[in-house]
Amino acid sequence: MSDLLHDCLFLKAARCEPTPRVPMWIMRQAGRYMKEYREVRSKVTFLELCKRPDLATEVTVTAQRVLEVDAAILFADLLPILEPMGFDLEYAQGEGPVIHNPLKSAADVDRVRTLENLDSMHFVFDTVRQCRRELPADIPLLGFAGAPFTLASYVIEGAGSRSYVRTKTLMHSDRAAWGVLMERLIESLERYLKAQIEAGCQAVQVFDSWAGCLSPRDYAEYVQPYTKRLIAAVSPHAPVINFVTGNPALLGLQAEAGGQVIGIDWRSDLADVRRQLGPKRAVQGNLDPVTLFGPQDQLKRQVKSVLESGRGPGHIFNLGHGVLPETPEDNVKALVHMVRELSAV
Amino acid sequence: MSDLLHDCLFLKAARCEPTPRVPMWIMRQAGRYMKEYREVRSKVTFLELCKRPDLATEVTVTAQRVLEVDAAILFADLLPILEPMGFDLEYAQGEGPVIHNPLKSAADVDRVRTLENLDSMHFVFDTVRQCRRELPADIPLLGFAGAPFTLASYVIEGAGSRSYVRTKTLMHSDRAAWGVLMERLIESLERYLKAQIEAGCQAVQVFDSWAGCLSPRDYAEYVQPYTKRLIAAVSPHAPVINFVTGNPALLGLQAEAGGQVIGIDWRSDLADVRRQLGPKRAVQGNLDPVTLFGPQDQLKRQVKSVLESGRGPGHIFNLGHGVLPETPEDNVKALVHMVRELSAV
Repeated sequence: MSDLLHDCLFLKAARCEPTPRVPMWIMRQAGRYMKEYREVRSKVTFLELCKRPDLATEVTVTAQRVLEVDAAILFADLLPILEPMGFDLEYAQGEGPVIHNPLKSAADVDRVRTLENLDSMHFVFDTVRQCRRELPADIPLLGFAGAPFTLASYVIEGAGSRSYVRTKTLMHSDRAAWGVLMERLIESLERYLKAQIEAGCQAVQVFDSWAGCLSPRDYAEYVQPYTKRLIAAVSPHAPVINFVTGNPALLGLQAEAGGQVIGIDWRSDLADVRRQLGPKRAVQGNLDPVTLFGPQDQLKRQVKSVLESGRGPGHIFNLGHGVLPETPEDNVKALVHMVRELSAV
Repeated sequence: MSDLLHDCLFLKAARCEPTPRVPMWIMRQAGRYMKEYREVRSKVTFLELCKRPDLATEVTVTAQRVLEVDAAILFADLLPILEPMGFDLEYAQGEGPVIHNPLKSAADVDRVRTLENLDSMHFVFDTVRQCRRELPADIPLLGFAGAPFTLASYVIEGAGSRSYVRTKTLMHSDRAAWGVLMERLIESLERYLKAQIEAGCQAVQVFDSWAGCLSPRDYAEYVQPYTKRLIAAVSPHAPVINFVTGNPALLGLQAEAGGQVIGIDWRSDLADVRRQLGPKRAVQGNLDPVTLFGPQDQLKRQVKSVLESGRGPGHIFNLGHGVLPETPEDNVKALVHMVRELSAV
C-alpha cells in the first residue's frame, strides 16, 4: 500500500491514531438521493448496475468526488453472492430483493453451495480494480459483504421480514443444519472479502443489518462464533468494520466478535459506546439518517453532539444506517462540510 | 381494593415484594393465536370487538382462564382514543390500522382535540367494569394506553412506518408544534388511564411500541419529559408498567421517566437490566415471542435463562412483545406451565 493510503485519515482513525479532523464517509453514499446516481441508474436495472464494472465504478468514484468524503465504498450489494451459492435472486420493482427458492426446512440446507470459485463474482473484483485506478491516491476504497446471520435470514425468509420467525425457528430447532448453513456462508464470505482486498480494497465492512432482531443470548449462541471466525480470518489482511444495527445491547458481544472498527447505529449512545470499548478500539457512527430531512440548524446540533460523544482518536463519522433514498441531497453535502469544519482540531 | 387483589402475585411483584413464584401474563394474550378468540372475532370486525363490552369482556376473561395467567389485560387497542381526538381511523383488512387524515404539517397540529370528555370511550370503561365482575377475585385487571410518542407517530405517519421520517422531521423542525401535540396527547391519556383505574383496573401499562426508533438524545429531548409527566400523574393511582420496545440503550432514560414496573423487550439482557435498575424497581419481560414457534425443549431452556436472569423479587414474566398471531397455542399453554413450575421457590 502507498504511504498516501497508509496514512489517510480513515486508516489512521481505524488504527486509533490521532488525525487533524474526524474522517467520514456515508453508508450508501452512492445512492438514489444523488442526482448523478439516478442518472446512471435510470439506464439499467439495479442488478445490472451491480454487474457492470464501468457503471459501478462511475457511481462509486462520483459519490466520493461529489461529496468529498474520506473514503469511497464499492458500489455493490449484499445479495449477489447468493446466486453462485444456489439462490434465485430478483430485485422486484419497488419491493426490494426476493429469493424465489428460499430454504424451507433444515433439509434444504444441503443444497446451499459453498463458493469455491470466485469467477462468478468477477464483476465485483473488476469494479474494485477500476475504482482503485480512478480514485484519488489518498482515498481508501472500502469493500463489504453481508454478515453470515443477515445472509442466512435472507435465504431462509426469502425477503425482508418483520419477526424473522422462519430464521429463528430453524436456528432453534435444528442446530446442526444451522451450523452447516453458517459454515458455508462464512467460508464463502471469507474468500469473497479476501478477494476484494486482494483486488485493491483498503478495508472491508461486514454488515449485520438484521442481527438486531436477536436477543443477546441467541446472538452469543448462534451467531457470534461464526462472525468471529469470519472476522478473524479476514482482519489480518485489512481492517474490518464490524457493523451491527438494531440492538445496542449486543455491543459487548459484537466487540468480542472482532473487527478493528465497531460500527454502530443511532440507537446507541456513542459516548457510552466509547467508554465501554475503551480508547484502543475505533468506532464508526452514528448520526440518525432521518436527521438529514430536518432543518440544517438542527442537523448541526446533532452533528456536534455526535462529534462530542465520539471525541478522541479512533472515531470515524458516519450515519447510523444507509442514507435514505428521499434524503435532500443538499443536506448530505452540508453534513460533510459540518463534520469537516466542526471536527478540525 | 380487596386484600385478595392487593396481595395477588402480580401486585406484590410490582411492589418488589417476595412471591412464592414469578407471576406472569402475556402481551396480547387475548389474540388471534387462540381458538376461543378467533371464534369471537370471526363474527365482528376488530373495531367492533373493541367497542362491544360483552365481547371484549368475553375474550379478556377467557384468555386469563384458559391460560391460567396471573393477570388479565383489558381487550382494547392503542388507537381508538384517536377518534374523539379528531382522527379518522380504519383497520383495513390484513393491512393494519390506517389514519385517513394524518397530520401533514406543523400547522395541522391545531386541529388535534384534547380529550376533555370521556363519553366517547365509554365502551372501554364498560368493559373494565364487566371484566372486573367476571374475573376471579384474586386476578388483577390491567388497563393500558399508547405512550405519547407512539400515538404521535401514528397520527403523523398515518400508518406503520419503517423510518419515521415524517414524525422525526416534524419533531426536529417545529419544536413548538411538537410540544402542543405531545401536551394534547398526555392530557388526554392521563384522563383516559385514570378513568380505566377508576372503573376497576389494578394497574396500567403504557406502550411505547415505537420509541425504539429514536436515539437516546432525541428520546431525552423530545419524548421523555412528556412520558414522565404522564406517568407521574397516573402512578399515584395505580402501578404503571412503562414498556418501551426496540432500543435497549433507552433503558436509563426510560427508568427515569417513571413507572413502578419497567417493561423491556427481548433485545435487552435481563440480568444487565436488573443490575442497572437495582433491587427496588420491578421489571417485566422478556422472552422473545418467536421462541414459541420452536421446539419445547428449546423453549424451556430459554424460559430458564429468563428466570435466572430475572431472579429476585420484582420480576414479572412476560414476552418481550405481543404474542404473534400464528403462534402454536399449545406452546403458549406450555410456556405458562414452565414458568409456574420452574420459578416455584
